[in-house]
Order: sequence, then structure tokens, then C-alpha cells
Amino acid sequence: MLQQLFSPSVQHTLDLVGIFVFAISGALLAVRKNFDVFGIAVLAEVTALGGGLFRDLIIGAVPPAAFTDFGYFVTPLLAALMVVFLHPHVERIQTGVNVFDAAGLGLFCVAGTTKAYEYGLSLTSSATLGLATAVGGGVLRDVLANEVPSLLRWDRDLYAVPAMVGATMVVLCIRYDALTPFTSGLAVVTAFVLRLLAMKYHWRAPRAWNRRSTVREE
Amino acid sequence: MLQQLFSPSVQHTLDLVGIFVFAISGALLAVRKNFDVFGIAVLAEVTALGGGLFRDLIIGAVPPAAFTDFGYFVTPLLAALMVVFLHPHVERIQTGVNVFDAAGLGLFCVAGTTKAYEYGLSLTSSATLGLATAVGGGVLRDVLANEVPSLLRWDRDLYAVPAMVGATMVVLCIRYDALTPFTSGLAVVTAFVLRLLAMKYHWRAPRAWNRRSTVREE
Amino acid sequence: MLQQLFSPSVQHTLDLVGIFVFAISGALLAVRKNFDVFGIAVLAEVTALGGGLFRDLIIGAVPPAAFTDFGYFVTPLLAALMVVFLHPHVERIQTGVNVFDAAGLGLFCVAGTTKAYEYGLSLTSSATLGLATAVGGGVLRDVLANEVPSLLRWDRDLYAVPAMVGATMVVLCIRYDALTPFTSGLAVVTAFVLRLLAMKYHWRAPRAWNRRSTVREE
Repeated sequence: MLQQLFSPSVQHTLDLVGIFVFAISGALLAVRKNFDVFGIAVLAEVTALGGGLFRDLIIGAVPPAAFTDFGYFVTPLLAALMVVFLHPHVERIQTGVNVFDAAGLGLFCVAGTTKAYEYGLSLTSSATLGLATAVGGGVLRDVLANEVPSLLRWDRDLYAVPAMVGATMVVLCIRYDALTPFTSGLAVVTAFVLRLLAMKYHWRAPRAWNRRSTVREE
Repeated sequence: MLQQLFSPSVQHTLDLVGIFVFAISGALLAVRKNFDVFGIAVLAEVTALGGGLFRDLIIGAVPPAAFTDFGYFVTPLLAALMVVFLHPHVERIQTGVNVFDAAGLGLFCVAGTTKAYEYGLSLTSSATLGLATAVGGGVLRDVLANEVPSLLRWDRDLYAVPAMVGATMVVLCIRYDALTPFTSGLAVVTAFVLRLLAMKYHWRAPRAWNRRSTVREE
Repeated sequence: MLQQLFSPSVQHTLDLVGIFVFAISGALLAVRKNFDVFGIAVLAEVTALGGGLFRDLIIGAVPPAAFTDFGYFVTPLLAALMVVFLHPHVERIQTGVNVFDAAGLGLFCVAGTTKAYEYGLSLTSSATLGLATAVGGGVLRDVLANEVPSLLRWDRDLYAVPAMVGATMVVLCIRYDALTPFTSGLAVVTAFVLRLLAMKYHWRAPRAWNRRSTVREE
């Protein structure tokens, strides 16, 4: 087992912050899709906890943290409640939400990678699962809302790459025995800043080479 | 472990009834979506067994009951077969189907909550998982059929709330050491009757407060 | 445990071939949906590994092979890379892809059934899980791409039936103690050839009986 990266209470607080901001993005999509208050709560829970749930099922950590930690369960409900009553304001502070969501992305890719490695996965698999932890909730959110996952669309700013970079930094640190609270924090911040830059400058990934020439639109 | 709530054969029969009526709702949606007979069978299986499968993966009960009990597997196929040949009649008896589906909702939320608690989850988590057991199959059905889950839509009669009430009654009974076949049965009946009333009087949940004022439709 | 059907290296090579061709089908759909290169990679991974991942979660083989075998992880990326640069050519060789996909279907239904039985499932459950292994990746691919799963649609050539036949042959061989590399290979080839014939002669499954008479289109 790796040494504890942060003090337990600090780590737990960071987790709850990430869960809260992810839940807001789910609840906002639910409002846009015209769901009722239960639909809003469900989408908030799924977005916030889905990535970690997938990771825990894969590594065999059952029951998953989402079902053993009361704070994990109740935080998305608070976020949903806030969105139900304040959503015009939340919409107006979309930039703020995006910043928090970027912070959640950074925190979750690092925490997911670390937990996967602690459960015995290889470095490559740990990084992959860290990425899945960070982006999985958003994919589930979009699938339940019957939309093409934002993660996969070419017309959205880079989202997976910052998480990939953060997860890769963690496994490199593990590989070279340099994983400390400082380097972990650095990985979080790097993923966070990369995502902010991707949003600011609208960085996008290329599509398939020469796509439009021969393949029909569908 | 809790005491056995019903005699095993009674419990098993109740499970099969719930599975059968859920399977009918899946098969009917498949007919409406113009799927072939295999699509009808798949959607019947997924609707009937999906909620329990999710619960069993979460609590670590692998292989899940859906894959160890032959009756669980074959019952949805019988429901699918019936729908394939009789679907105009099944459509005509939609009210009857809705009544059975409400019974399935009641049975599954109570059975799911009880099983989750037996596997060591907390009271809150057990109730949540009981709710997920009851509604999960329907969500999977709608996702596979590429529709917005009926559970999340504001223009459908209350579905989650009756299951929530049933699951909550079970955990309150556990908390105060009052879980007996009688109180369990009462929880089943309460969820069942609440769902019937929701359908009869078209009870619906509110949407986000002041929704239409500032957020665009999508 | 059953005897090893093929030498480990032969089995592993066959697995990688199946993963590769399934990944190509996922990557091609991603190109058609106009996803970016990361979306193409994700859809390739999900299509190739989703079926086996589901099987491993069900039988409790965690972490799943998809996360423990580096070759399983990297093969879909190579397929995605190939599609990104060569997709007009890949489109043109669609027939070739279909043939390989049929081979993957045969290999996966047999390997999935065998692995499920080794983990203690009954014969019926093993065959069902073998079928799910073979078709699960394609269903996940279509769900993520926000399309009705090709598996369920009546206007597609038979896909599940060949895999069902292959899986059934395996469990019959197990039942009568006749599972050898030869009979396993025969099951693979039977599923493969049936799928080829279904594509050549456009075999389709019937829909619900008398469907159009009384049920409205949706």
C-alpha cells in the first residue's frame, strides 16, 4: 500500500468537493432536459458517483465507496437541491462551475489512479482506470440523458487529455518512487490547469484524417 | 442475517411474479420499437433482471442470482414468447400489466433492501439499493431502446417515490427491530398502492423551480 | 477446471485477433459519428473489451482480463490508429471487416462460454454468458454512440443466433464430456460460417406476430 497521500480528512474533503461539482453538472443537464426533481437527483448522483463506482467494481472493492460513505451519497442530493431552487443563478455562474468541474477532474484522475494501483493493478491499467474514474460519471450522465457523450464529441474542448496527463504523472511518480503529497498535488494541479487552458483556448482533438472526403455523414 | 421473511417457496414465487411482469413491460416496448424476436427476448431479460443484477454486483453477490437461478432466466423468455404472439391482447390489457408492474415494484424494493442489508450495507445504502433494484431494470430497458428513461421524465406518473417509501419502511422496521413477514408485506402493499394511486390520479413530481423563465429548451 | 483447449499462446493470439476486429467495428462507427480521435479510441476499446468485461464482472473474475493483460488494452488502440489514418480504405474493405467480425463472434462465444463454466456457472448460464461476451461489446458501442443497438433491430442480418449456436455446442460438448480442441474449434467455425451465411443471404429474424395490425409505430 502506498503511503497516505493526504491526511484522511483532507482527502475526504477533496473527494466531497469533486463529487459536489460533478453533481452540479449532472443536475444542470437534468434541468435542461426538463426532468422532474427525482430525475435531477438521480442524474446528480450518477454523474458524481458513476466513475468511482465503475472503478470499484473493476478492482473488486465491493460494496463501492459510493454505498459505504454517507457523505458521498448525500452530497449530490445537496447539489441537486441547490440546482432545483437556484438553477438560473447556477447557469449564470457556469464559468465557476466549469472551474470546479476541472478541479474535480484533476482530483478524481489522481485519486482513481492511486486507488487502482493500491488494489494491485499494473501501472498502465491504473492510469486507464484513473482516467475512467474521472470521465466515467459524465459518460453515464450523457447516456442516461440520451445524448451522445460529450467526452466523445469532436466539437467539445479537450477533456480526456488533461485527465490522462494527470494519471500518467501519478504512475510515473509511482514507477520512480516519487509519489508524495507534493507530486500528487502537482498532478492534480496540472490536470486542472490543462483543462482550464483547453476551455479558454478551445483546444480540440483532431478527427479522423481526411474524414470528409469519402465517408458519408450520418 | 435477518430471519427469513417468507417461506422460501413463497418468496421465490413472488420473485418470479415480479420478474414476469417486468419482462412484459420490456417485451412490449421492444414490440413498439419494432425489434425482432431476439430483441424482444433481450429487452425482456434486461428489464426483468437488470435491477437485481446491478444490486448483486454492488454487494458482491457474484455470480448474481440472475445467472444461478434457472427460473429467473427462463421466466422472461416465457413473457417474451407470450408478448410475441399475443401482443395486441397484451396491449389491450395494459391496465392489468400496470397493476402487475406496480406489484413488481413493491416486491422488488422490499426484497432489494432486505438483501442489501443482509450483505452488510448501512440502512441508508440498503434503502438506496432497494430503490435501484426496483427501478434499475426499467432504466436499462429504456437506455437499450435508446429512449430517455421513463423514470427521469417529468411527464410520467410517480414511480420512484412509491419504491422509496417501501424501502424506507423496511429500513425503519430493521432499525426498530420490527421486520416481520407482516411489516414486510405491509411495505410491499404500501408501495404497490401508492403506485396505483399515482397512476389513477396522475401524480407527478415538480420540475426545477421557475424552470421556464431563464433556461432554454433543448 | 476444463483442460486447456488450445495452447496458451494460440488461445491468446485468437483472443487478440477477435479484439482487433471488434475494435475496428467500434472505431469505424466512431468515424461515422464524427467523433474525435479520443472518441474513436474509447469506442474501439469499449467494443473490443466490453463483452469480456461484463462476463468477468458477473463471474467475479476481478480485476477483469481487460485490465490485467496489456495486449488486450493496446490492441484496440492499434486498431483505432489504423482506422484514423486509413478509414477510407477500411470502409472499402468492409466485407473483409465483416468476415473478421464474424470470426470474432465465433471465438468470443466459445471462449466466453468456456470461461463462465470454469468459474462454476451452470450450463445454461454459461451459454448465456458466452452469448453476452460475444455481443456485449457491440451493444455498449451502440449505446455510447446513442444508437439503437444493431443487435436488437429487425432490419439487420442475424447476429445473435450464430453465437447462440456456438455457445450451445460448447455446453452440449461439456455435458457429454466431449469438449476437445477439435469440438471447440468446430463450434467456433459453425458460429463463424452461420454468421457469414446470414450476411450473404440476409437472414433475418421475424418480428412480433401480426405486428402492424394494432400497435402504433413510434
